[in-house]
Amino acid sequence: VEAQDAQRIFEMFEPLHPADIADILEQIGADARRALVHLYGTEFDGDILSELDEGLRDEVVGYLRPDVLADAVRDMDSDDVVDLLEDLDESQHSAILDALEEDDRDAARQALSYPEYSAGRLMQREFVKVPQDWTVGQTIDMMRTSKELPDQFYHVFLVTPDDTPAGYVTLGRLLSSNRNTALSSVTEDSFRSFELDEEEGDVAYAFNQYHLISAPVVDTNGRLVGVITIDDAMAVLDEEHEEDMLRMAGAGEGSLSDGVMETTWQRLPWLGVNLVTAIIASLVIAVFEATIQTLVALAVLMPIVASMGGNAGTQSMAVAVRGLATRDLTGANVWRVIRRETLVGMFNGMIFALVMGVVGYVWFGSLMLAGVIAAAMVINLVVAGLSGIGLPALLDRLGVDPALASGTFVTTVTDVVGFAAFLGLATMLLL
Amino acid sequence: VEAQDAQRIFEMFEPLHPADIADILEQIGADARRALVHLYGTEFDGDILSELDEGLRDEVVGYLRPDVLADAVRDMDSDDVVDLLEDLDESQHSAILDALEEDDRDAARQALSYPEYSAGRLMQREFVKVPQDWTVGQTIDMMRTSKELPDQFYHVFLVTPDDTPAGYVTLGRLLSSNRNTALSSVTEDSFRSFELDEEEGDVAYAFNQYHLISAPVVDTNGRLVGVITIDDAMAVLDEEHEEDMLRMAGAGEGSLSDGVMETTWQRLPWLGVNLVTAIIASLVIAVFEATIQTLVALAVLMPIVASMGGNAGTQSMAVAVRGLATRDLTGANVWRVIRRETLVGMFNGMIFALVMGVVGYVWFGSLMLAGVIAAAMVINLVVAGLSGIGLPALLDRLGVDPALASGTFVTTVTDVVGFAAFLGLATMLLL
Repeated sequence: VEAQDAQRIFEMFEPLHPADIADILEQIGADARRALVHLYGTEFDGDILSELDEGLRDEVVGYLRPDVLADAVRDMDSDDVVDLLEDLDESQHSAILDALEEDDRDAARQALSYPEYSAGRLMQREFVKVPQDWTVGQTIDMMRTSKELPDQFYHVFLVTPDDTPAGYVTLGRLLSSNRNTALSSVTEDSFRSFELDEEEGDVAYAFNQYHLISAPVVDTNGRLVGVITIDDAMAVLDEEHEEDMLRMAGAGEGSLSDGVMETTWQRLPWLGVNLVTAIIASLVIAVFEATIQTLVALAVLMPIVASMGGNAGTQSMAVAVRGLATRDLTGANVWRVIRRETLVGMFNGMIFALVMGVVGYVWFGSLMLAGVIAAAMVINLVVAGLSGIGLPALLDRLGVDPALASGTFVTTVTDVVGFAAFLGLATMLLL
Repeated sequence: VEAQDAQRIFEMFEPLHPADIADILEQIGADARRALVHLYGTEFDGDILSELDEGLRDEVVGYLRPDVLADAVRDMDSDDVVDLLEDLDESQHSAILDALEEDDRDAARQALSYPEYSAGRLMQREFVKVPQDWTVGQTIDMMRTSKELPDQFYHVFLVTPDDTPAGYVTLGRLLSSNRNTALSSVTEDSFRSFELDEEEGDVAYAFNQYHLISAPVVDTNGRLVGVITIDDAMAVLDEEHEEDMLRMAGAGEGSLSDGVMETTWQRLPWLGVNLVTAIIASLVIAVFEATIQTLVALAVLMPIVASMGGNAGTQSMAVAVRGLATRDLTGANVWRVIRRETLVGMFNGMIFALVMGVVGYVWFGSLMLAGVIAAAMVINLVVAGLSGIGLPALLDRLGVDPALASGTFVTTVTDVVGFAAFLGLATMLLL
């Protein structure tokens, strides 16, 4: 298909949604991507850029002719333009800003002045507001004559004389109410507004928690400056989840379209941290070299205790990281959950102590060795439960993203405790 | 506060959103929960039940007086009633079904006949449909006189004479168009419909991918039977995230409000699998007992190689599970990504081989030992990259949720390969 057949490509892409075209561009190799963007040429839609993976936007924008880029950008919503700009190199900013009309350019510059990942970056400037004392009829007449309604909107915002949002009315309510009805009598309870510098994660959480569809954004004086819609909040929720998942695994902010070297560097830091923590665990083993020399069976069994602890710790940690992300784990229940995880660790520790005790006895024929591994198992699973929930909670309290560091640290604790408990008990009881 | 002071509780709960009240009920202990629900009594809102964690609904429904329950249920949307029913014991079904009006009861029974986690369960029956040849004016007049408009709706659905959805018009477009405009000339491009038995995860993906706000659900004859709205899709997306995260960690479907014994049983199966795989890794070590006896330093260093492999494998796996969940990892790019992960494993393997080689030499003063650990590191990190991406991709191809089993299996591979490569090379080269 990449045989320069532009006509075929137009036909193939015509029925596709921009999001699907962006997916295709992400999944093919860099050379094919370049060729495809060149061939697609003037048909290139700005929405494809917004749908494209952040890491690829720079690259694809670079392939576009300036006039195509200008056309593409002019059709985009204000929030999408900002989203695009924030991921591009500074050098590409002017190409895009120049393409915009003056109003939009000022607005884009303004939006870029808000902190990254804030409500100000997420909001769009296209919305419908009316004075709070209007009637349904006045509102409908205004909308019918207005030339500049947003593409998609779901609420009409009521504002006070000093431009503070005072409530909103759904379009459905507007359509089903009598023309003489005062807007203020048909507003929705769900109304909630956000500040410009509120974190986008908090905004997405509120949308999901309170089933919001759109919500106003206000500046420091409380004036209505923009609107956030649920589709953008949903995209943020999805990104936050990606971050949590990749961070928990220490995989950085990578994407599937990143290259080999880029990915190597992204993964390196946490592998480095892991090397240090693995060496610490080894130092614990080194303390007991003499014991192992005497009883090599210990070297065979010790990874089992460590592995079970790591697994149990990871289970507790996933519950903690998730609970913190959804605000379900709070000061009100953290002690109860810590208590629960510790008890769960103890019970599962006892169950697997029994199993492993039997296995150990059958395998090595030593009741004492079986007892040592069983005791170490209980100790390590209790510690796993405690640190699996406690470390993320502690990191969160310290203002660090609990997903960022928990994985490596929890397994370090369970490795160290696992080796120390098993080899320590063995040294005391078996020699 | 739980000092039987019902008045105080009404006052405290009055300004709260049902979702927040549900959160409070989730975070307090079981006894306090029972007391609170009793005190709150007749004021109990059905929406609190929908917001409540699935595991707690049974419990809280049990605390409610039948008449309070009936009142609470009658005000709920059809999709929320179904959602509630599917999480309750059969014995509680009749209490809720009896409270509904006959129409709603039939509809709820019907909805429960659709497969779990399907579009049929997710949709609501409240929607607005009009013949496709109507004008804007006809539609607005109908809506103004209709008594039964849904609480929240964003589109009017156009249907053919045999009730097939043919497109939709946003309320904003309806309000801004001339009364004589044919509806069919102002429909939206984004229109997409779902089948009753489509999986809810696929529905949520489509909403996020195509920025849908609402979408029709059709039966096997293509007739419009319900509508899914984005707020429900967002909730599904959030649940799927939770599932992926907890499954990857082998933590089952647990929630923070589950009790100790319940949680112990949820965690047990994967700990059991992990025990078996850890024993397999131990068997590998047992093969080399004689080697370790001769050179105890090997027992000290071997967990480092295994740990680095486990960490690198988890990184690749998180990328794979996430890519599969978002449909970004497909047949089109899976080989390119496998190649990338393997190369990344090789490069990081070489970097940490160098570091660990130096550390090993300084620590134990043996150039040969340093070389063995360096070589084992490269081998294990290459295998980690390969299995970290390959195992989830394979599970997905086999129709198994890649998040379900990947974690334990990937670390088994890296443990086995890590121990075998390190101890095997040591046996060959050092003895």
